Amino acid sequence: MKPINVTVWGEYRHEKTHKAVSDVYPKGMHVTIAEGLQAYPEFAVRTATLDEPEHGLTDAVLNSTDVLTWWGHMAHGDVRDDIVEKVAKRVWEGMGLIVLHSGHFSRPFKRLMGTDCSLRWREAHDKERLWVVNPGHPIAQGLPDFFELPEEEMYGEYFGIPQPDELVFVSWFTGGEVFRSGCCWHRGMGKVFYFRPGHETYPTYYDENVRKVIANAARWAAPTLVSQFTRSANGPTAPLERDRVTG
Amino acid sequence: MKPINVTVWGEYRHEKTHKAVSDVYPKGMHVTIAEGLQAYPEFAVRTATLDEPEHGLTDAVLNSTDVLTWWGHMAHGDVRDDIVEKVAKRVWEGMGLIVLHSGHFSRPFKRLMGTDCSLRWREAHDKERLWVVNPGHPIAQGLPDFFELPEEEMYGEYFGIPQPDELVFVSWFTGGEVFRSGCCWHRGMGKVFYFRPGHETYPTYYDENVRKVIANAARWAAPTLVSQFTRSANGPTAPLERDRVTG
Amino acid sequence: MKPINVTVWGEYRHEKTHKAVSDVYPKGMHVTIAEGLQAYPEFAVRTATLDEPEHGLTDAVLNSTDVLTWWGHMAHGDVRDDIVEKVAKRVWEGMGLIVLHSGHFSRPFKRLMGTDCSLRWREAHDKERLWVVNPGHPIAQGLPDFFELPEEEMYGEYFGIPQPDELVFVSWFTGGEVFRSGCCWHRGMGKVFYFRPGHETYPTYYDENVRKVIANAARWAAPTLVSQFTRSANGPTAPLERDRVTG
Amino acid sequence: MKPINVTVWGEYRHEKTHKAVSDVYPKGMHVTIAEGLQAYPEFAVRTATLDEPEHGLTDAVLNSTDVLTWWGHMAHGDVRDDIVEKVAKRVWEGMGLIVLHSGHFSRPFKRLMGTDCSLRWREAHDKERLWVVNPGHPIAQGLPDFFELPEEEMYGEYFGIPQPDELVFVSWFTGGEVFRSGCCWHRGMGKVFYFRPGHETYPTYYDENVRKVIANAARWAAPTLVSQFTRSANGPTAPLERDRVTG
Repeated sequence: MKPINVTVWGEYRHEKTHKAVSDVYPKGMHVTIAEGLQAYPEFAVRTATLDEPEHGLTDAVLNSTDVLTWWGHMAHGDVRDDIVEKVAKRVWEGMGLIVLHSGHFSRPFKRLMGTDCSLRWREAHDKERLWVVNPGHPIAQGLPDFFELPEEEMYGEYFGIPQPDELVFVSWFTGGEVFRSGCCWHRGMGKVFYFRPGHETYPTYYDENVRKVIANAARWAAPTLVSQFTRSANGPTAPLERDRVTG
Repeated sequence: MKPINVTVWGEYRHEKTHKAVSDVYPKGMHVTIAEGLQAYPEFAVRTATLDEPEHGLTDAVLNSTDVLTWWGHMAHGDVRDDIVEKVAKRVWEGMGLIVLHSGHFSRPFKRLMGTDCSLRWREAHDKERLWVVNPGHPIAQGLPDFFELPEEEMYGEYFGIPQPDELVFVSWFTGGEVFRSGCCWHRGMGKVFYFRPGHETYPTYYDENVRKVIANAARWAAPTLVSQFTRSANGPTAPLERDRVTG
Repeated sequence: MKPINVTVWGEYRHEKTHKAVSDVYPKGMHVTIAEGLQAYPEFAVRTATLDEPEHGLTDAVLNSTDVLTWWGHMAHGDVRDDIVEKVAKRVWEGMGLIVLHSGHFSRPFKRLMGTDCSLRWREAHDKERLWVVNPGHPIAQGLPDFFELPEEEMYGEYFGIPQPDELVFVSWFTGGEVFRSGCCWHRGMGKVFYFRPGHETYPTYYDENVRKVIANAARWAAPTLVSQFTRSANGPTAPLERDRVTG
Repeated sequence: MKPINVTVWGEYRHEKTHKAVSDVYPKGMHVTIAEGLQAYPEFAVRTATLDEPEHGLTDAVLNSTDVLTWWGHMAHGDVRDDIVEKVAKRVWEGMGLIVLHSGHFSRPFKRLMGTDCSLRWREAHDKERLWVVNPGHPIAQGLPDFFELPEEEMYGEYFGIPQPDELVFVSWFTGGEVFRSGCCWHRGMGKVFYFRPGHETYPTYYDENVRKVIANAARWAAPTLVSQFTRSANGPTAPLERDRVTG
């Protein structure tokens, strides 16, 4: 079986400047996320980060990526226009995109949503409980009815997104808020999944359920068979019922 | 009753350079579209065009517009970045947007969809028959089961859009194609309607059914009561269950 | 302006046998719900109850009802087959249906959903906080970002419904659960809204926000203009392109 | 790899009484449909028909069926209530259901849709051209942009279904009509696909593209991993935040 090629993209800035972050993720958050996926034999995983040339997302990398995961926070504005456009175009062609936590404000996500992607938030020691609201969905496979993260940042509604094509998780927070925390969209031939958890000061990406969700999402978002779809991009198309059209 | 303020935006270039167009729309397509709406007492209609300062879409105009209609074709690239962003932002705040025909490739539409919005096409004397596939939808009110346009440009599938939140019309063409020709989406608090017909060399915007659809769509897309919605844009939000959250 | 004819249907059994219920709703829950709607001038409101002949839903009543609200709990099984079918048929023709609280297990709701409509529940003194997740929706008009009910029964996910066409509210409960508490669907030409709150021992239907939601929903669910839609019910239909089809 | 167990259900009445049908499908339509699936190694295929005991759908058969395909026409009314309920319940538990052609009026399909499922139709020698409107969908994999059936019965809009969760095909007919001919819904943990072609007097189920669609749909509709989902069916559920709830 051909592996699913996953590229784990990380901003990788907090880890170099905030001890509270490097204590939790000494090799970088992207490495921890990648390790979670590497536990599954069907994935071939590599990483890319903001400060590499072309943010690590050269044409060669993007064109051989089946699923791209994206975590960014403090430096969304440093992501280049042309890379944002290339990521969007690859999604339209079929590449999967998994956007994590503060990536709700990342440029590729906003580009693909067409909305402002704003939300309510609070950095405090909330508990988050994620409820499965779509138990037949591939991304919920193998999960219990709900699972908990003992400490997380709070994100609350209203979340400024287009209504998800498929809603998989809704979160409950100790502080009294709710959030649509697992959301699916289709854009062109590609799939997009937003998954809420993952504040940089908490060990969220070591959590077994979180890792299972990301793996499920990577499997769901991977392009399947190559479609024979061809787009008549280079000009007008001839009528199929030739005797019926003049001009 | 307060009127619904509609601004009819037209590129207004073909009409100045192509006799085949000015023969059909001597005052400009935007004027004909505006006249169609003015027949209904609930609308207060004005027009704006590309070559006016700020494309006629100053802050004063946009902020007092309930519904914006958009027809453009040969000069999509001349629409300024900042105006595109302002239109998108106004939609998120609740302004309705009705995108007509070749506006499928306009910058505001692509900005709000997050897809490439490509399609199959042919300039020929096809007949278009628009079928109502959602007869309970407000935009279909007062229409027969289908209606016809004796001559139109053909647009065919695959149309590169996010799946519409509500699909109202599907078109049949003599040449053998089909098209999702009336599509609704929600973006933030605003509504977007794409309506296919309206090639510049045909008298489509004089057609009674086309005018009824545009009027229905303007009524549907108009913001209703002002919501009390407030966005905690300026910083974190306090917990509602204060005794449960620390940090 | 023609009024919107609302028929408030109540099971009206608990109120006769449970003092805890009649203490809160001495005239019956349906009367309290009706009074909430009567405060708005656009509604013409009447009531109907299970133990009336034909459950109060004669052809004359149903055919002159624009929006039907439904509260039932202990006697879902006593609702007659033929009345369930008539309600479903009227929805397909355009009548709005607002299903309240324990009506999630009512026969008309299950008939229109095609799912089992099961959920998680607990009768305890939970607090419910309803978050608006769709602030541009007509049913959310005039509401704050969230509102609270100090005591309610808990309903939790997974809620066995088809994914709502439009999700308006998500509830947070003190006990740790979440629930999709305001859900819209379209069935034929009619609209269906499910609204969670309303356990019979709490004064929920006196609450100002709850009353506003039910009134907003009745306005949203009311049929608009009569469509010219005609269904070729009595046999095959002739081709529109007669020279192209043989046989 | 565990096979996908497909049960092909056929009404199998026309074939015994109409020579025009038995000429095309001498062993029965269900056998031809089954043979199309048997060409793919991942399916374990069996058949069941109306006039077998329990319509061939005993508990043993249903409980071991991953995907059920359904073709019926002249005898919808002969399908037993209890079998309809069992099929619906199995779908809610995760079984896939593929409904073919005149099965739009079958009892299991109407049960799961909650609408009247009516449509416009004509028995004539129309040509049908099926356009892919969702090229990234698993059911469209390996198909060209469109494919044709040289002779078919016409089905036209309005089709009285809930808006599909995913729309895959739209058909064009020579006579001038369009139809949403490939539609997906989710009901509980199960998936439902409606596929239009297949009038009993045409050799549609021998067509290579039709067979590919049915095989793609069976793969799509098959349940994936067993979810750990448990429903608190037998009574109330305890609060997760025990110190916060009284009563």
